[in-house]
Amino acid sequence: MDNLGLVAAVSIAVSGLTIAVGSIGPALGEGRAVAQALGAIAQQPDEANTITRTLFVGLAMVESTAIYCFVVAMILIFANPFWDYFLSRAGG
Amino acid sequence: MDNLGLVAAVSIAVSGLTIAVGSIGPALGEGRAVAQALGAIAQQPDEANTITRTLFVGLAMVESTAIYCFVVAMILIFANPFWDYFLSRAGG
Amino acid sequence: MDNLGLVAAVSIAVSGLTIAVGSIGPALGEGRAVAQALGAIAQQPDEANTITRTLFVGLAMVESTAIYCFVVAMILIFANPFWDYFLSRAGG
Amino acid sequence: MDNLGLVAAVSIAVSGLTIAVGSIGPALGEGRAVAQALGAIAQQPDEANTITRTLFVGLAMVESTAIYCFVVAMILIFANPFWDYFLSRAGG
Amino acid sequence: MDNLGLVAAVSIAVSGLTIAVGSIGPALGEGRAVAQALGAIAQQPDEANTITRTLFVGLAMVESTAIYCFVVAMILIFANPFWDYFLSRAGG
Amino acid sequence: MDNLGLVAAVSIAVSGLTIAVGSIGPALGEGRAVAQALGAIAQQPDEANTITRTLFVGLAMVESTAIYCFVVAMILIFANPFWDYFLSRAGG
Amino acid sequence: MDNLGLVAAVSIAVSGLTIAVGSIGPALGEGRAVAQALGAIAQQPDEANTITRTLFVGLAMVESTAIYCFVVAMILIFANPFWDYFLSRAGG
Amino acid sequence: MDNLGLVAAVSIAVSGLTIAVGSIGPALGEGRAVAQALGAIAQQPDEANTITRTLFVGLAMVESTAIYCFVVAMILIFANPFWDYFLSRAGG
Amino acid sequence: MDNLGLVAAVSIAVSGLTIAVGSIGPALGEGRAVAQALGAIAQQPDEANTITRTLFVGLAMVESTAIYCFVVAMILIFANPFWDYFLSRAGG
Amino acid sequence: MDNLGLVAAVSIAVSGLTIAVGSIGPALGEGRAVAQALGAIAQQPDEANTITRTLFVGLAMVESTAIYCFVVAMILIFANPFWDYFLSRAGG
Amino acid sequence: MDNLGLVAAVSIAVSGLTIAVGSIGPALGEGRAVAQALGAIAQQPDEANTITRTLFVGLAMVESTAIYCFVVAMILIFANPFWDYFLSRAGG
Amino acid sequence: MDNLGLVAAVSIAVSGLTIAVGSIGPALGEGRAVAQALGAIAQQPDEANTITRTLFVGLAMVESTAIYCFVVAMILIFANPFWDYFLSRAGG
Amino acid sequence: MDNLGLVAAVSIAVSGLTIAVGSIGPALGEGRAVAQALGAIAQQPDEANTITRTLFVGLAMVESTAIYCFVVAMILIFANPFWDYFLSRAGG
Amino acid sequence: MDNLGLVAAVSIAVSGLTIAVGSIGPALGEGRAVAQALGAIAQQPDEANTITRTLFVGLAMVESTAIYCFVVAMILIFANPFWDYFLSRAGG
Repeated sequence: MDNLGLVAAVSIAVSGLTIAVGSIGPALGEGRAVAQALGAIAQQPDEANTITRTLFVGLAMVESTAIYCFVVAMILIFANPFWDYFLSRAGG
Repeated sequence: MDNLGLVAAVSIAVSGLTIAVGSIGPALGEGRAVAQALGAIAQQPDEANTITRTLFVGLAMVESTAIYCFVVAMILIFANPFWDYFLSRAGG
Repeated sequence: MDNLGLVAAVSIAVSGLTIAVGSIGPALGEGRAVAQALGAIAQQPDEANTITRTLFVGLAMVESTAIYCFVVAMILIFANPFWDYFLSRAGG
Repeated sequence: MDNLGLVAAVSIAVSGLTIAVGSIGPALGEGRAVAQALGAIAQQPDEANTITRTLFVGLAMVESTAIYCFVVAMILIFANPFWDYFLSRAGG
Repeated sequence: MDNLGLVAAVSIAVSGLTIAVGSIGPALGEGRAVAQALGAIAQQPDEANTITRTLFVGLAMVESTAIYCFVVAMILIFANPFWDYFLSRAGG
Repeated sequence: MDNLGLVAAVSIAVSGLTIAVGSIGPALGEGRAVAQALGAIAQQPDEANTITRTLFVGLAMVESTAIYCFVVAMILIFANPFWDYFLSRAGG
Repeated sequence: MDNLGLVAAVSIAVSGLTIAVGSIGPALGEGRAVAQALGAIAQQPDEANTITRTLFVGLAMVESTAIYCFVVAMILIFANPFWDYFLSRAGG
Repeated sequence: MDNLGLVAAVSIAVSGLTIAVGSIGPALGEGRAVAQALGAIAQQPDEANTITRTLFVGLAMVESTAIYCFVVAMILIFANPFWDYFLSRAGG
Repeated sequence: MDNLGLVAAVSIAVSGLTIAVGSIGPALGEGRAVAQALGAIAQQPDEANTITRTLFVGLAMVESTAIYCFVVAMILIFANPFWDYFLSRAGG
Repeated sequence: MDNLGLVAAVSIAVSGLTIAVGSIGPALGEGRAVAQALGAIAQQPDEANTITRTLFVGLAMVESTAIYCFVVAMILIFANPFWDYFLSRAGG
Repeated sequence: MDNLGLVAAVSIAVSGLTIAVGSIGPALGEGRAVAQALGAIAQQPDEANTITRTLFVGLAMVESTAIYCFVVAMILIFANPFWDYFLSRAGG
Repeated sequence: MDNLGLVAAVSIAVSGLTIAVGSIGPALGEGRAVAQALGAIAQQPDEANTITRTLFVGLAMVESTAIYCFVVAMILIFANPFWDYFLSRAGG
Repeated sequence: MDNLGLVAAVSIAVSGLTIAVGSIGPALGEGRAVAQALGAIAQQPDEANTITRTLFVGLAMVESTAIYCFVVAMILIFANPFWDYFLSRAGG
Repeated sequence: MDNLGLVAAVSIAVSGLTIAVGSIGPALGEGRAVAQALGAIAQQPDEANTITRTLFVGLAMVESTAIYCFVVAMILIFANPFWDYFLSRAGG
């Protein structure tokens, strides 16, 4: 197992784990926010517009943490600077 | 165990774990949102349309994190750049 | 233990764990949704149709994450590209 | 320990763990749904028919995730393609 | 430790763990369902028949996941195809 | 450590862990059911007969999962087919 | 470390862990049942006899799982068939 | 490290862990029962005698699981048959 | 590392862990009982004597499990029969 | 595996884990805050402006901890001083 | 690493872990008791004397388990019989 | 792997884990505080100023623990005295 | 790695972990007590003096367990008898 | 890896983990206290001064446990006596 294989294996493993672990929190947080939104609409139907607008802004904030994880996972697979270095060295 | 075998083994293991771990959060979050939606409909039947519309938008947001995981798992199995590199080197 | 044995062992192990871990979240989420649906029907029997319709759409969303896991498990057992490659190399 | 022994050992271990881990979620989810159904019947006896019908559909959905696990466990024991390959090679 | 010993050891270990882990979920789920049934009877004694009938059907569903585990454990001890193969090879 | 010692050690370890882990779920489930039964009797003393009868049937269902574990533990200690095989081979 | 030492060490370790782990569930379950019984007596003093009778039967059921563990622990220490076999072989 | 040292080390380790792990459940269970008893006395002072009597019987049941652990720990330290055997052999 | 060093190291490690782990349960259980006692006194000041008396008896029961752990820890440090044996052998 | 490979592998692994683990807390915290905001709007619609303004300031505080993690992950991938040092040494 | 170093390292490690782990339970238990005491005073100010007196006795009981841990940690650092023995042997 | 590589690898790993683990607590704590603040504003709109002022002071306290972690992570990456020492020695 | 290095490494590691783990319980316990104190003042403002006095005594008790941990951590760093012994031996 | 490298690596690792783990408890505890303070102000606005004063004293107590951790982390990085000793020996 040389450096190239090591970096490839670690990149694959970490990219998957990053998005897998990173989706637990946002999914639970969003589920809770959506659930509460539905309860709020049922309680105060006249404010449905304000509630859904606030909900969507809040969901965007929560989703942002999932997107950080997705971005890092994509960087590790498709734009990994460590992999690029070892590739260029192996090809040189 | 050469680099090719290592990358294959890690890709298989991570793709499965990614979607397995990544389905826990969304499933729980969606279950909570659906449950609350049903309670909201029972409490305020006249708002069933608003509630189900908000529910579906929210479920889509939550499902998106599961889809990130599924996309990464599929990339690791069918479009893995590391595997492609080692394959091309092994075939050269 | 050569590459072929390694890939076979990892594929078997991961396919089982994927569906096993991946069934925990959906089962709990669906159980919660079903439980709440029954409570909602008891509370508002006149809306039983709306409730059960919303319930089934929601269950389908939750079930989708379990199905992702099942699909990945089946791919790893019956349509594993890594296994196919090593098989073809071993047979060549 | 050759490939044959490795695949056999992993198949045995994973088939058992799959159904064991995979039965936790469905059992808890079904228990919750059944418990709520009984509470709903006690609260609204006139809707017992609707409630039990919805309950059975819901239980079937939850049970489906346990059945996925059972299917995978059975495949790993009795229709394992990896085992079949190594058997045929060992017998050739 | 040859293949025969490995398969025997793994089969013993997994059969025990399968039924041990697999009994946690059903036991908790059934306990919850039974507890709720008793509360429901106390609340609505006139529906005791409907409640106990629904309870028994539900318990059967929950018990089914424990039975899957028991079946797999028994197969691994008394009808293990991997063990049979190695036995026949050792005896040949 | 030959096969005989390995099988003996694994059988001892697994038989103990099986009944130990397998007693957690039933004990908690039964405790919950009994607790609720007492609350139900206090709430509706006139239905004490129905409640205790339902309780005992339910406890029997929950106890059954503990008994599965006990049976497997006893089989592993006193009627272990793997041990019998290695014994007969060692004695031959 | 020969077979005899291995079996002795495993038997000691497992007997202790069996009763230690196996006492958690029953102790919590019994504590819950006793606590609820006291609450029930405070709520309905006239039914104290029925409540305590039901409590003792229930405690006996819960205690039974602890006793299974104790029995297995005692068997492993004082009537261990594997130890007896290796002893007889060592003494032969 | 010969057999004698191994058995001594395992016996020491297991005896301590047995009583340590085995005291968690009973302590929590008894704490809960005592807490509820105090609440029950505050709610129904006239039944203090019945409550404390039931409490003590219940505590005895819960304590019994802790005593099982203590007995096993003491047996492992002071009346360990495996240690006695190896001692007699070492002294022979 | 000879037997003497092994036994000393294990005895030190286990004595500390025994009392550390063994103090979690009793501390939480006693904290709960004390907390409830204070609530009970606030609710029913006239029964303060009965409540505190029952509290102290209950605390003694809970404390007993911590004392078991302390006794075992002290035995392992100051009256360890295994250590005594190896000491006498080392000194002989 | 030389220093360069080690630093690359560790940097990849840690950057992914940092953002993955670091997104759990903020996602849950933000989900809770958003959910409560929706409930507050439903309860006091006239204060929607104050509530959403406070919500956004609060979300910014919570998001800041996720951003710390993202910054560290980016530093480890793109501006890692340890990697730069070893690169310069390897290139010298 | 001779016996002296082993015993020193284990003693250091265990003394720290003992007091660290052993402080979790008492701190939580005392926090709960204090919290409830404050609620009780707010509810029944006239009984503040009885409440604080009972609180302090209860805190002393809970603190005792932390003190057991502290005593064992101090013994392991400053009055460790195993260390004394090896010291005397090393100095002899 | 020499000292320089070891220190680099450990510094990278620990800096990431420090901020990742250290962001869980503050994020949850701040989320809770913000959520309660919104509920308080909805309940008592006239006190919005006092509430938000207290909220911001409290958030600053909670954020301080996250900042401790961030400071330590930055020190480990950019001002690590151990790394500086080994660098100066390697360069000397 | 000689004894001196081993003792130094273990002392560093344990001193940090001791205060880190040991601060979890007291921080949570104190947070709970403070939170309840604020609720109690809001409910019974006239008793603010009694409440804060009892709070501070209680906090001191809880803080004591954190201080035990801090003391042990300081002893391990600055007054470690094992380190002193090995230092004196290394210097002799 | 000599003593110097070992001590450096352990110091880096432990300093980070100490502040990371040590910030979880205080952050949660402070979050709870702040949240309750806001609820208390909303309930009893006239006591805002007493409440915030008590809050700040309480937060200072909770923060103290985080500061213990920060102090130990700083000592391990910048004033580590073990590192100083090995440095002086390496430089001598």
